[in-house]
Amino acid sequence: MSCFYCDANHEGRLAIMFKVGDMKASTLYLFKDQAHRGRCVLALKDHKKELCECGDQERMDYCEDLARASGAVKKLWGCTKLNLASFGDSNPHLHFHIVPKYEGGFEFGGNFTITNPDPVLLTDAEYQEMIDALKAELGI
Amino acid sequence: MSCFYCDANHEGRLAIMFKVGDMKASTLYLFKDQAHRGRCVLALKDHKKELCECGDQERMDYCEDLARASGAVKKLWGCTKLNLASFGDSNPHLHFHIVPKYEGGFEFGGNFTITNPDPVLLTDAEYQEMIDALKAELGI
Repeated sequence: MSCFYCDANHEGRLAIMFKVGDMKASTLYLFKDQAHRGRCVLALKDHKKELCECGDQERMDYCEDLARASGAVKKLWGCTKLNLASFGDSNPHLHFHIVPKYEGGFEFGGNFTITNPDPVLLTDAEYQEMIDALKAELGI
Repeated sequence: MSCFYCDANHEGRLAIMFKVGDMKASTLYLFKDQAHRGRCVLALKDHKKELCECGDQERMDYCEDLARASGAVKKLWGCTKLNLASFGDSNPHLHFHIVPKYEGGFEFGGNFTITNPDPVLLTDAEYQEMIDALKAELGI
């Protein structure tokens, strides 16, 4: 079975997210489900399963990417609290969900649903506008 | 209202976790609910809300602590996949849940419940054994 993140043409990934761009040690994706406005995923470029498997430089670069990408989401869309979460029990390539939570909004106050059964989908132009905003903010 | 992690005597925190020890930029706690064997929390020492609010050195130290602490959990109890997650919508002091998942075990394959309504509680001696094992593995 091909890896969800290593396979550039993985249909499962292409169905649910758009590539935004490459960062130091990772690739940033915008989630198609925008029930949490600004929701992204940050996947390690290299195929590793756990953060603790990274060497020092890769971990420092990946965590810098995670801080910068999530900071850009917060700056652009003004969430109340960022949720950062790595699960991957059935998709073991290191990636963090970046899920902005808005006070009074969807799922505020607890966890979040990894695969939302009632996704909020946007137009292609709206997705492109978000991707362009992230790329400009991050210089990627 | 006092902060869940800054207040050394916060009753809410004392009710659900034990302090293991201090690391470079963080404090490690063992969760009393051991439905996921080895479950811990790693809280930043300083009171900040988001990873993106940390300066470079604090972020590098905290992420090193997160990798070391979760690596120790994996080494000691042999989970299939580590889940690392920072929520904190209603408790905004930066902390990551370290939740080891075991293939075929509780909640394997998806998210995890932040507050499990059916916790697995151990004896004081069993908790102490786990705390001692973590302290020895991490040299803290």
